[in-house]
Amino acid sequence: MYELGVVYRNINRTDAQTADALAAFGSATVHEAMGRVGLMKPYMRPIYAGAQVSGTAVTVLLHPGDNWMMHVVAEQIRPGDIVVAAVTADCTDGYFGDLLATSFKAQGARALVIDAGVRDVKTLTEMDFPVWSKAVSAKGTIKATLGSVNIPVVCAGMWVTPGDVIVADDDGVVCVPRAKAAATLEAARKREANETEKRAKLASGVLGLDMYKMREPLQQAGLRYID
Amino acid sequence: MYELGVVYRNINRTDAQTADALAAFGSATVHEAMGRVGLMKPYMRPIYAGAQVSGTAVTVLLHPGDNWMMHVVAEQIRPGDIVVAAVTADCTDGYFGDLLATSFKAQGARALVIDAGVRDVKTLTEMDFPVWSKAVSAKGTIKATLGSVNIPVVCAGMWVTPGDVIVADDDGVVCVPRAKAAATLEAARKREANETEKRAKLASGVLGLDMYKMREPLQQAGLRYID
Amino acid sequence: MYELGVVYRNINRTDAQTADALAAFGSATVHEAMGRVGLMKPYMRPIYAGAQVSGTAVTVLLHPGDNWMMHVVAEQIRPGDIVVAAVTADCTDGYFGDLLATSFKAQGARALVIDAGVRDVKTLTEMDFPVWSKAVSAKGTIKATLGSVNIPVVCAGMWVTPGDVIVADDDGVVCVPRAKAAATLEAARKREANETEKRAKLASGVLGLDMYKMREPLQQAGLRYID
Amino acid sequence: MYELGVVYRNINRTDAQTADALAAFGSATVHEAMGRVGLMKPYMRPIYAGAQVSGTAVTVLLHPGDNWMMHVVAEQIRPGDIVVAAVTADCTDGYFGDLLATSFKAQGARALVIDAGVRDVKTLTEMDFPVWSKAVSAKGTIKATLGSVNIPVVCAGMWVTPGDVIVADDDGVVCVPRAKAAATLEAARKREANETEKRAKLASGVLGLDMYKMREPLQQAGLRYID
Amino acid sequence: MYELGVVYRNINRTDAQTADALAAFGSATVHEAMGRVGLMKPYMRPIYAGAQVSGTAVTVLLHPGDNWMMHVVAEQIRPGDIVVAAVTADCTDGYFGDLLATSFKAQGARALVIDAGVRDVKTLTEMDFPVWSKAVSAKGTIKATLGSVNIPVVCAGMWVTPGDVIVADDDGVVCVPRAKAAATLEAARKREANETEKRAKLASGVLGLDMYKMREPLQQAGLRYID
Amino acid sequence: MYELGVVYRNINRTDAQTADALAAFGSATVHEAMGRVGLMKPYMRPIYAGAQVSGTAVTVLLHPGDNWMMHVVAEQIRPGDIVVAAVTADCTDGYFGDLLATSFKAQGARALVIDAGVRDVKTLTEMDFPVWSKAVSAKGTIKATLGSVNIPVVCAGMWVTPGDVIVADDDGVVCVPRAKAAATLEAARKREANETEKRAKLASGVLGLDMYKMREPLQQAGLRYID
Repeated sequence: MYELGVVYRNINRTDAQTADALAAFGSATVHEAMGRVGLMKPYMRPIYAGAQVSGTAVTVLLHPGDNWMMHVVAEQIRPGDIVVAAVTADCTDGYFGDLLATSFKAQGARALVIDAGVRDVKTLTEMDFPVWSKAVSAKGTIKATLGSVNIPVVCAGMWVTPGDVIVADDDGVVCVPRAKAAATLEAARKREANETEKRAKLASGVLGLDMYKMREPLQQAGLRYID
Repeated sequence: MYELGVVYRNINRTDAQTADALAAFGSATVHEAMGRVGLMKPYMRPIYAGAQVSGTAVTVLLHPGDNWMMHVVAEQIRPGDIVVAAVTADCTDGYFGDLLATSFKAQGARALVIDAGVRDVKTLTEMDFPVWSKAVSAKGTIKATLGSVNIPVVCAGMWVTPGDVIVADDDGVVCVPRAKAAATLEAARKREANETEKRAKLASGVLGLDMYKMREPLQQAGLRYID
Repeated sequence: MYELGVVYRNINRTDAQTADALAAFGSATVHEAMGRVGLMKPYMRPIYAGAQVSGTAVTVLLHPGDNWMMHVVAEQIRPGDIVVAAVTADCTDGYFGDLLATSFKAQGARALVIDAGVRDVKTLTEMDFPVWSKAVSAKGTIKATLGSVNIPVVCAGMWVTPGDVIVADDDGVVCVPRAKAAATLEAARKREANETEKRAKLASGVLGLDMYKMREPLQQAGLRYID
Repeated sequence: MYELGVVYRNINRTDAQTADALAAFGSATVHEAMGRVGLMKPYMRPIYAGAQVSGTAVTVLLHPGDNWMMHVVAEQIRPGDIVVAAVTADCTDGYFGDLLATSFKAQGARALVIDAGVRDVKTLTEMDFPVWSKAVSAKGTIKATLGSVNIPVVCAGMWVTPGDVIVADDDGVVCVPRAKAAATLEAARKREANETEKRAKLASGVLGLDMYKMREPLQQAGLRYID
Repeated sequence: MYELGVVYRNINRTDAQTADALAAFGSATVHEAMGRVGLMKPYMRPIYAGAQVSGTAVTVLLHPGDNWMMHVVAEQIRPGDIVVAAVTADCTDGYFGDLLATSFKAQGARALVIDAGVRDVKTLTEMDFPVWSKAVSAKGTIKATLGSVNIPVVCAGMWVTPGDVIVADDDGVVCVPRAKAAATLEAARKREANETEKRAKLASGVLGLDMYKMREPLQQAGLRYID
Repeated sequence: MYELGVVYRNINRTDAQTADALAAFGSATVHEAMGRVGLMKPYMRPIYAGAQVSGTAVTVLLHPGDNWMMHVVAEQIRPGDIVVAAVTADCTDGYFGDLLATSFKAQGARALVIDAGVRDVKTLTEMDFPVWSKAVSAKGTIKATLGSVNIPVVCAGMWVTPGDVIVADDDGVVCVPRAKAAATLEAARKREANETEKRAKLASGVLGLDMYKMREPLQQAGLRYID
């Protein structure tokens, strides 16, 4: 967030197998598997419902109303990447539309996560190029000021280092630091393994109160039932 | 809103016939039939479009970031109920996901109305379990502090007493107090009865100005037409 | 915004051919073609995805919680118009529902743009009557205070004069002043003409950096690449 | 919140001694003494710093943009009361200014708590008439629609019944139900009694970790210190 | 709002006597005298309490994050002017600080009204140079893109034409169109003349219900008193 | 932001001389001296006007509604520190009041910067203990879940590493990374040195257009003057 006018060409990406495998678990499970951290602000919403992706982060820091660096980051995309775009001040302008999406897709990007606005959402939906953003806005941008590419950034309240894994779906966007990716994948798998059985029990009418053995701690905390 | 650590097991539910019949009229008509009161804040939005339900309220008061009481309220659900969840301070965390939805559904709940966040919205949509919420967020919660079940609560700016009728659709969420439910149903029916004829007139090109006889009061109020 | 209690019956509409032709370009292209001005605030969202319209503005100024003038403006609609509704103070009430939509449609309106709330969105969607609004709310309104019809208004931050062209789609709402409509159409056509070729190049992997010849200006601005 | 067009002339006020005594403890202590409930949303701010009051609630339910009932509630004020004003939908209009303040003060009101806007704040400050509000706005209101006086209302997210105690200061506004007022006063006194000693210890450099004996529970929760 | 890159050097200012006289009445009275129109959004707040000014508007349209045109508008200021600054998209950056304030003051400006951010507020307060703004922010801006000076603009939701009168105080900011300034001043004087007598009556305990003769219309509207 | 349940006892603080010297320049100048980066979101406001401080950051990561770690961080404070508190999700609760302030002050803290709420602001003002926060709220917190102390955190949108310099005043809060502190101090000094002369020129009526030699670039950009 503090270095302007630089492009780091070599970043340490999380290994593709781990990065790819996290998509299946979704943002909620991955966030829990990390100990309930890593989630971006809930104002980050998908432009269409149903997309669920993961990939390695390439980052870009932008200035308000200026999308010059979006073209610079395009060159740094490798297949399997997700572009994470931060801005130095609050802005809802539409930094990204169908032309940039065509370029990002051609370079192998899976998605864009941007703490600002996006436009051409109808075309992006038809292209199946998912975007998570703070706003949708037709407002255009200029190309006047340098930001940076592949420096660590704060995007929607979360710290993202280039090469981290991004997991995004209808529930939001999570960042998994590279050093934690393997352990998080392992934890997510364990979490998920338990859920099928739990779901069946709950569906049959067993209460969480009993399944999770909550009655005693609730009583100890002082819960009173009144008829 | 003022009593913590209690669960009321016996509540006076609005009779099922009245509670069920209100769904057909939708939130706007029911809200008008009550004299334009009862509506929750418009930030309460459905997680998917098209659901239209009514049912009797069971209530739960939660603390920020703590969903312990969601398991306690599950046991108090009877078929035909809608769970109304309030929080003691603003919070967008995801208190509710597919496991709790499975449990609520198994107990007979028709919907959840929560003045906070919800997650697993893709699965909830597939399950046809409608939720009206302030936010969608993958953020998880803890289980540490007692709230209450089936006390009167303020949810999204509206007072809800257990047993009241909740009517929710794409336009929002209305609470109909038990004592007013029968009269509201009656009033909603009358309102609706007039609408078919009105719609036909307006579709044929008759103006509301004439149909509602507004020209004279507008003139008396001083409206001037300028050519 | 300053004159109350008046209805202007004769307004100078942009010629229909120009007004109609702008729809095809969408709000983002039209906004760019005007020099990046004319866009309403991005909080204006369509009630359903996919609608893309243009038309001539008839305007109405409302008071908070009062939709009396909506019936007055209905009479001033001509086929091809879009109603633009402004309010004298922030308000999210549902000023407009299926009855008014039936009337507006019968008079030839193509859409409503309202800096407030709308209701009956399920029915409006079934009717294919698009609305761009600040909120969805079942909250009803009264009929007590005069506003005005066909005076210039500020709607969602943008100045709209009766007869201007409104262009609206999933990206937002743009107002094109009548005096600029023809030139804007021309500029939009030129803009669009270039895009097909650009899109093909970007899809083939050519970078915007090269296509737009940005490498030199970026270097001159001081951009440093670090390996 | 559900009954319109009525004025209750006889309400059960909390006894004056209790109501008056709560002011000294301030909103934070009183809110804690009640078990961390009763606080209005934090968007409720005083128009000037330093006022700290308590008093018995008389309530008024208003419609958006309409302050007619403010004159009706004026007649129901008794010395020692605080007027609590709620609105049926979000509104920031200036419902209250120096003339109404003069009248309220003459009737014995100590303050106004309003989930909307207020104006003439410079004069109100000079008059030493404190107001807690959601907004400051010069926007005027009309007098067209009936609300109610002395019915229970939801004000800034909190349920207020006429006769409850309101405690307000720079930290916010708390409502203490009449039935809980005496116990809350008692609990607040106990809370405060401990604080002088605690403050002295902390000022001398003793840590809360030791004073509250937190080291062991923190260790049991798994806290690790890294040098 | 639609013309970029131009500076109008000759504008028709409201005559100084009228423009100056409006300050004494304050924003609330002036807004009422105009028929309850003309008020900017209530998010416009003074950087310090107590300032009350009026003056003729010179306008400037800025781009997000770019304050280049602030230097251009400085040259167009005449003694008695108030600068009104609008932005083409939402932005909270600090466009204005103590250096620009020194320059504006030297040219004779009385105040700045800006729909964006301001900085150096401590120094501005010491300089007695009042500013009404949407935000306070240390965030700096660039000088890269042309806006315009002395075109009509939308500032905080209100239409301002160069030469109009701006009235601002602790309650907000009102714009009085030049053509309405004299009549508004007259109406404000009449309004104020009545207030002294009313204030005295209310202070003596007379109720607004009686002074304004509201009892009968309230009864006719159906108000019921319940003992 | 990603590591929970740890306390780092040894951090590398920026040298005191540099950290202390930055206060004199204020947040706007320091932010500019860094190249217009480092500023927290402008919603961070001081609880009282006029405080201007700098100091070395000790950080704490909290959970929503839980202030347990505030007691843990108190022990890590060294004279000259400023505590920077981040939360894992949006929360406005009052995490900090006069008792904690007494303790922080006793340990040598100069201020608190918290991306949440604070209470007892009247007492804090009397104590001259400045706080920059997102909200003021009497809402209390619990002590149930571990966060961390002295890990890097995102506070109000900005990345803060323990030992960085925090500069805060009425314009906002800036974080200066330790590695950049000396250079930033140098740059701030240069910036300030030029300002006295500039201020005198502007006060004498010289325009920024001339002082900054903007007339030619404006003309080249196409600015047109119209008489």
